[in-house]
Amino acid sequence: MLKIQFGERSMPTPPIDVLLIEAMDAVDIQSALAILKEMQSIDIAEALEQIPVAYASQLLLHLPKRAKVYTAMSSVRQAELAQHLARSDLADIISEMPADKRADLFKSLDPAQQSALLPALAQAKREDLRRLSHYEEGTAGAIMTSEYATLGAEMTITEAIETLRREAPDAETIYESYIVDTQRRLMGEISLHELILAPLDHKVGDLMTRDIIYAQVDDDQDEIAKKIARYDLLALPIIDAQGVLVGIVTYDDAMDVVSAEANEDFLKAAGVEASTPDMNIKKIPLLQLYKKRVFWLVILVFGSLLSGLGIAHFESIIESNIVLVFFLPLLVGSGGNAGSQSATLMVRALATGDVVLKDWFRLLGRECLVALALGITMAIAVAILGYIRGDAMVALVLILSMIGIVMIGSVIGMSLPFILNRLKLDPASASAPLVTSICDATGVVIYLFIAAQLLGQI
Amino acid sequence: MLKIQFGERSMPTPPIDVLLIEAMDAVDIQSALAILKEMQSIDIAEALEQIPVAYASQLLLHLPKRAKVYTAMSSVRQAELAQHLARSDLADIISEMPADKRADLFKSLDPAQQSALLPALAQAKREDLRRLSHYEEGTAGAIMTSEYATLGAEMTITEAIETLRREAPDAETIYESYIVDTQRRLMGEISLHELILAPLDHKVGDLMTRDIIYAQVDDDQDEIAKKIARYDLLALPIIDAQGVLVGIVTYDDAMDVVSAEANEDFLKAAGVEASTPDMNIKKIPLLQLYKKRVFWLVILVFGSLLSGLGIAHFESIIESNIVLVFFLPLLVGSGGNAGSQSATLMVRALATGDVVLKDWFRLLGRECLVALALGITMAIAVAILGYIRGDAMVALVLILSMIGIVMIGSVIGMSLPFILNRLKLDPASASAPLVTSICDATGVVIYLFIAAQLLGQI
Repeated sequence: MLKIQFGERSMPTPPIDVLLIEAMDAVDIQSALAILKEMQSIDIAEALEQIPVAYASQLLLHLPKRAKVYTAMSSVRQAELAQHLARSDLADIISEMPADKRADLFKSLDPAQQSALLPALAQAKREDLRRLSHYEEGTAGAIMTSEYATLGAEMTITEAIETLRREAPDAETIYESYIVDTQRRLMGEISLHELILAPLDHKVGDLMTRDIIYAQVDDDQDEIAKKIARYDLLALPIIDAQGVLVGIVTYDDAMDVVSAEANEDFLKAAGVEASTPDMNIKKIPLLQLYKKRVFWLVILVFGSLLSGLGIAHFESIIESNIVLVFFLPLLVGSGGNAGSQSATLMVRALATGDVVLKDWFRLLGRECLVALALGITMAIAVAILGYIRGDAMVALVLILSMIGIVMIGSVIGMSLPFILNRLKLDPASASAPLVTSICDATGVVIYLFIAAQLLGQI
Repeated sequence: MLKIQFGERSMPTPPIDVLLIEAMDAVDIQSALAILKEMQSIDIAEALEQIPVAYASQLLLHLPKRAKVYTAMSSVRQAELAQHLARSDLADIISEMPADKRADLFKSLDPAQQSALLPALAQAKREDLRRLSHYEEGTAGAIMTSEYATLGAEMTITEAIETLRREAPDAETIYESYIVDTQRRLMGEISLHELILAPLDHKVGDLMTRDIIYAQVDDDQDEIAKKIARYDLLALPIIDAQGVLVGIVTYDDAMDVVSAEANEDFLKAAGVEASTPDMNIKKIPLLQLYKKRVFWLVILVFGSLLSGLGIAHFESIIESNIVLVFFLPLLVGSGGNAGSQSATLMVRALATGDVVLKDWFRLLGRECLVALALGITMAIAVAILGYIRGDAMVALVLILSMIGIVMIGSVIGMSLPFILNRLKLDPASASAPLVTSICDATGVVIYLFIAAQLLGQI
């Protein structure tokens, strides 16, 4: 029977890491292993991240699925354990890891560790590791695995299934098999689903799909993830410039890319650099967090000077109408808010591919209409306040300024991501804070210019 | 041989929709079908979205994989075609759709269309449709499919593979099979991978995995997607309160949920309501776009009044030191920027589960240290300017204000998502714009208060 766990209703128990440390303190490794026995690899990995590295390395060596658990750990903990384990143990674990994850780990080690490790691996694994590690970060090559199943076009279905049975333990998936010619050029693919349904004496070559979806080894990994999601693939074959099959990317790695990219865009939109996708806010060193945040903040300090210069230019109109200062944050802020809304909508639409560069002009008209409607709504709200605190003339200044500021802010906000995209810069990195500071400065000038025209004459 | 397409290097050809319309204008449906022949379902679906609905419905009926193509279309185009197709054709296509997608479509139809459609479906499909459509949006029930493969524990491997061969066309996946008892309670699962490797005379019940990962039918779909990604599952079984297997959610639907949720959070962070996840900025009606944006903008207008009130309170100090206005946008903006960075980091960390409610206090100390460092950096930048435009006293006001504003802004920014989470509100909806306007008002008060203390005595 299935063990149904009633998480919220059960008695509170101490967290697993506390139980593990207690057992290990008592030199009772069997109890500790019993706790981990029925857990999934990723849950074990997480528990082993919470306990001292000496305990974690002892427990890891006794786990039946130690390579899976090690693979599921964060790169920080993997590196700590790599330091702590005997070289032969580490080589054993690394040999059992999936090829793509092994390459990721290898790249994260320092040169001394790398050259200590290589001789401990078998010849074939070593060459594979060298090959996978040399692909540039962010490309298909850097996330693909070399462990896929291949079949010959001339095989019968019986022979194909027999081949998969034999190769299964080494392949990352046997649900998609690839058919290659003698030069290992990709010719077609066939799923295990199709193999299971087919008459046993038919040939693989007659049943395989020839119009397959594939990618090049230097394609951007973001594109790879999009292809896998778009075509609902289990795995995407990766070829080199000669059409030779060099690896596959599986759906689970694509899901990780989608999450990491979404996270990156989200952080970038608030002016936080996001080069390390798996950073954990609880654990990241403070200096690193400082560095990630300081760049945009200082840039924006200087950006805000533009607003200051605008104010300086109109200092006399402010001095003679101090009530204008009361509405300054409101008007300026509204332009920034409307602008960052527009920018965010465009950044997302560009990222998802809903919108391309040449749509800018067509969208401009729509944006102006919406911004006009928004500006009028907001102008009505603020005009009432202007009349109460000032007079009819101040109310008029506010109405005209609000409409102008919201419209110009929106147009700047929607255009900036296009411009950055055009300049081959990442639109996400610039949205909210940059747009806000540009809109702020523009807003100051619009507001005080209108005020000078209407109130200056009095 | 594989047809390698050199996308960027080939001659420019007219887009597919133009070619299709030309062929259909010439009443040459065969040419139009020839264009679509070797394309993937999703690509065909996209092409058919770009052409008039009358043409699209004619072509759809002639496509061999029409149900797949129809399934891949946007809900807007599905509804248009549902209006346009003969009822029997529509019923045929709908019968061939995956059960989960059929239920989604059904829910999007109006009651008159629903009752026109139901009698045209077979009895079993009709009941399944009714059952799947009644689950609440956003839950596992609303995205699961009822088309999964089940096996009996007493079957031999040979019998199991034979069963899958027979059931394959109806199941969404045969790569994971579920073993249920006579009451259809979930007992275990076995993958096709395991079946292929197992000796043919063994029993399914002896080889199946009993410690399986599953979810409840009323679990949040965000949780479902997280589970699938965390455990790298192909499919997640969904049970009801009695432990009865009622459906499965497949990895491709989970990927869609991940993308949609990321999109929603991203838009919410800029104060855009994001209830329709698949909205396309090019096509959404302007009134709807206006409605999505106006709410937060008007709220923020009133929010900014707090800043105005702060200014009004200190009007005399501004009048006697008009240089203060020059630095107002800069200081106030810096607090907002630092605050929205902190808020964004927390919103993401809460969304990914890296951080939970009880971490707030622990993170507060870290945040204060980082904010202090950031504040000092920014204060140095601004103090130089203050000295140039004003004097040493003004520079001192700026230093103290900047440090205070950045620190308080950061603390507000990091705390607000926790507070909203505590109040069971969505932290994402409140980050950037709300934080900015709260930090703005706080910044005004801090700045002018410090100025009044230091400059007021002169």
